[in-house]
Amino acid sequence: MRPGERSGGGPAAGEARAPSPNGTPPGFHTMWRELWPVGRHSGTGGYRRFAWTGADAECRAWFAEQAGRRGLTHEVDRNGNQWAWLGDPARGNAVVTGSHLDSVPDGGAFDGPLGVVSAFAALDELRARGARPTSPLGIVNFGDEEGARFGLACVGSRLSAGRLTAEQAHRLTDADGVTLPRAMAAAGYDPEAVGPDPERLGRIGAFVELHVEQGRALDLTGDRVGVASAIWPHGRWRFDFRGEANHAGTTRLADRRDPMLPYAETVLVARREARLAGAVATFGKVSVEPNGVNAVPSLVRGWLDSRATDPAALDTLVARVEAAAHECAEAQGVRLDVVRESFTPVVDFDHALRDEIVRILGDGTARLRVPVLGTGAGHDAGVLAGTVPTAMLFVRNPTGVSHSPAEHAAEDDCAAGVTALADVLEGLACR
Amino acid sequence: MRPGERSGGGPAAGEARAPSPNGTPPGFHTMWRELWPVGRHSGTGGYRRFAWTGADAECRAWFAEQAGRRGLTHEVDRNGNQWAWLGDPARGNAVVTGSHLDSVPDGGAFDGPLGVVSAFAALDELRARGARPTSPLGIVNFGDEEGARFGLACVGSRLSAGRLTAEQAHRLTDADGVTLPRAMAAAGYDPEAVGPDPERLGRIGAFVELHVEQGRALDLTGDRVGVASAIWPHGRWRFDFRGEANHAGTTRLADRRDPMLPYAETVLVARREARLAGAVATFGKVSVEPNGVNAVPSLVRGWLDSRATDPAALDTLVARVEAAAHECAEAQGVRLDVVRESFTPVVDFDHALRDEIVRILGDGTARLRVPVLGTGAGHDAGVLAGTVPTAMLFVRNPTGVSHSPAEHAAEDDCAAGVTALADVLEGLACR
Repeated sequence: MRPGERSGGGPAAGEARAPSPNGTPPGFHTMWRELWPVGRHSGTGGYRRFAWTGADAECRAWFAEQAGRRGLTHEVDRNGNQWAWLGDPARGNAVVTGSHLDSVPDGGAFDGPLGVVSAFAALDELRARGARPTSPLGIVNFGDEEGARFGLACVGSRLSAGRLTAEQAHRLTDADGVTLPRAMAAAGYDPEAVGPDPERLGRIGAFVELHVEQGRALDLTGDRVGVASAIWPHGRWRFDFRGEANHAGTTRLADRRDPMLPYAETVLVARREARLAGAVATFGKVSVEPNGVNAVPSLVRGWLDSRATDPAALDTLVARVEAAAHECAEAQGVRLDVVRESFTPVVDFDHALRDEIVRILGDGTARLRVPVLGTGAGHDAGVLAGTVPTAMLFVRNPTGVSHSPAEHAAEDDCAAGVTALADVLEGLACR
Repeated sequence: MRPGERSGGGPAAGEARAPSPNGTPPGFHTMWRELWPVGRHSGTGGYRRFAWTGADAECRAWFAEQAGRRGLTHEVDRNGNQWAWLGDPARGNAVVTGSHLDSVPDGGAFDGPLGVVSAFAALDELRARGARPTSPLGIVNFGDEEGARFGLACVGSRLSAGRLTAEQAHRLTDADGVTLPRAMAAAGYDPEAVGPDPERLGRIGAFVELHVEQGRALDLTGDRVGVASAIWPHGRWRFDFRGEANHAGTTRLADRRDPMLPYAETVLVARREARLAGAVATFGKVSVEPNGVNAVPSLVRGWLDSRATDPAALDTLVARVEAAAHECAEAQGVRLDVVRESFTPVVDFDHALRDEIVRILGDGTARLRVPVLGTGAGHDAGVLAGTVPTAMLFVRNPTGVSHSPAEHAAEDDCAAGVTALADVLEGLACR
């Protein structure tokens, strides 16, 4: 469904309906309708909810209001992450679910919000079932997950888990030269407070993040919901091809040192090697100097994003792309420097928690047989996995499109996600 | 030589020396030394002399001063082109030489200024020879030849020749949103005055532009000076490859519609087809959306600049590149639109004038046997060629590098250019 819009033949968005395996629970449409216009660009239809902007503040106000409507305790931690609690988290062994509300530039409606909306909806469903949690139950909205503004993903969860220091965070700067501290202060938060939060994370017994799938694995297996096995290792490499600026009309081909040529060859090699390795490799960002129509470039800088099922496969893939790129560059008299800008090792989610979730879903309301699948995308869950027993649920994405206004999930699948999450919360927190 | 710097073992820049076939004439070094720092970026060593900026005003003041020093009549026409006259142009059948003083971004020292400095130096040499012009002799500095600021080349000569209307010129806007009229007015010129200048151009019997060569043809033939035959036909085409934005980590290769792939293939096809056609083809400018490291692009826009010896060869080349690009795009589920943004037909310089110049140089002081060669670059001479008998002299460029701080011409070759130009002026204006 597309939040806030009528879905084919169904009730209007925002109309409350009785929960059913095929429909969405009460409140679900209302939540979507409220979130729908926040930070939405009327031209592209995509979302621009960047950390510490007005759209972000609206999302945060919405979260606080959802917590208030349900009688949950709302708190904001030192890093600006929002928490809504049923029961006192100080008791420990809390079960937490949630995701994020920020977006990539012109992102879709589901990446992030589906996990938060489903969390509140699952809590509503638990209450409708009359389930009585024995552990504290939390819903979280992690700040700045996408990193669209400051270039680093999962800033909120990284700070809390001690995987980003306050000093590092203070140096983050957006494209307009605004530092993270200035942006936080302008939004009414205290940038001096940021830092690790071991006490708060130590109270969590299990964190389960529900997320719209960002590929088509569930579509291909025909399942509405899946459970994450691992996040693939992931790296970013910058390829700087340096040639010689020259006149595009008068410089003989033989006299050129045109860096666009080895760049183009490298793009094609990366695709071929990724295909052979069953991995992914993408050149999605390019910067050219002087970038003039009638100028042979002096510099073509391309960024390779690559991910594979295991580190050895990724190493081999990237080494092959690098070797081919060097060969192509040399043949054109072009200098090549390759810099690894970031690397995230494989994240293996807690096996015991994963197995328990699979068992719960098989026994639960929906009696789901869920596939266990890896993913190439980073998440707050991946950051927390080193600190807290963590799992992820994925909801089917029929096209696999993500980080785009065309991102989509069917209403029935969203409903199945809520039911599955309610089953998991009941299984983990009401025993 | 590099203006303003010591050349190996020779006299310091700015020292006047007696004219000789192997040295530069008096005043030559002084002129270079004065122009040397104007608009030069200390970081890149390249020139940033954009139309109607402070650097441009300094160049113009320098031109007026050179005219004054030599007792020439200085005037600025309605389009901001500067003229320095020996004799009354109203007598008609004037012989004019000159070029431009503006630059591309981080351009070299020679492209433009060599033609203007050589014009004054050739006049000095004519006078030192005791030659007596029987026709009016003019030196011109055309405004905004490179089009670096407003995106259109040869604005000054185009306006005068009626090949750009005042209305079109008034709509030109720079990257900061400043219109040409505002820029002209800010520089103290009247933008309402611009327009065709048939009376002024009608007084010209021959226009000869001397220019540093922008390729290596003279270096390969071993000649210091050459004469232009024609300017190749030249076009710019915009290739818009539209795919689908998607997550670079989670989208299976098979599910992607990645426009970077057909773009890369098209870059390589263009190079191959240009090589086969003995032409040039360049993708020097690219724009990517959303241009994120972890995003499959939705749009890759590349600009093809291509030039060939004749229109049929250019048509065939571009048709082949387009056909291959469409095939590659289709294979990736990518939509391709190709738009021809500009096209300049072949410019064939006046055959009689060219033959006369070849004869004059063969008989003249230097007794040069000059090669006649085509060029891929546009020039004011190319614009005027439709209105006035026009010719060009090229001075050897040992590396062919152009539009770059590394652009270079040897001191001896510059001197040979001055002597050749003096011979041509004497042959055309003193008969």
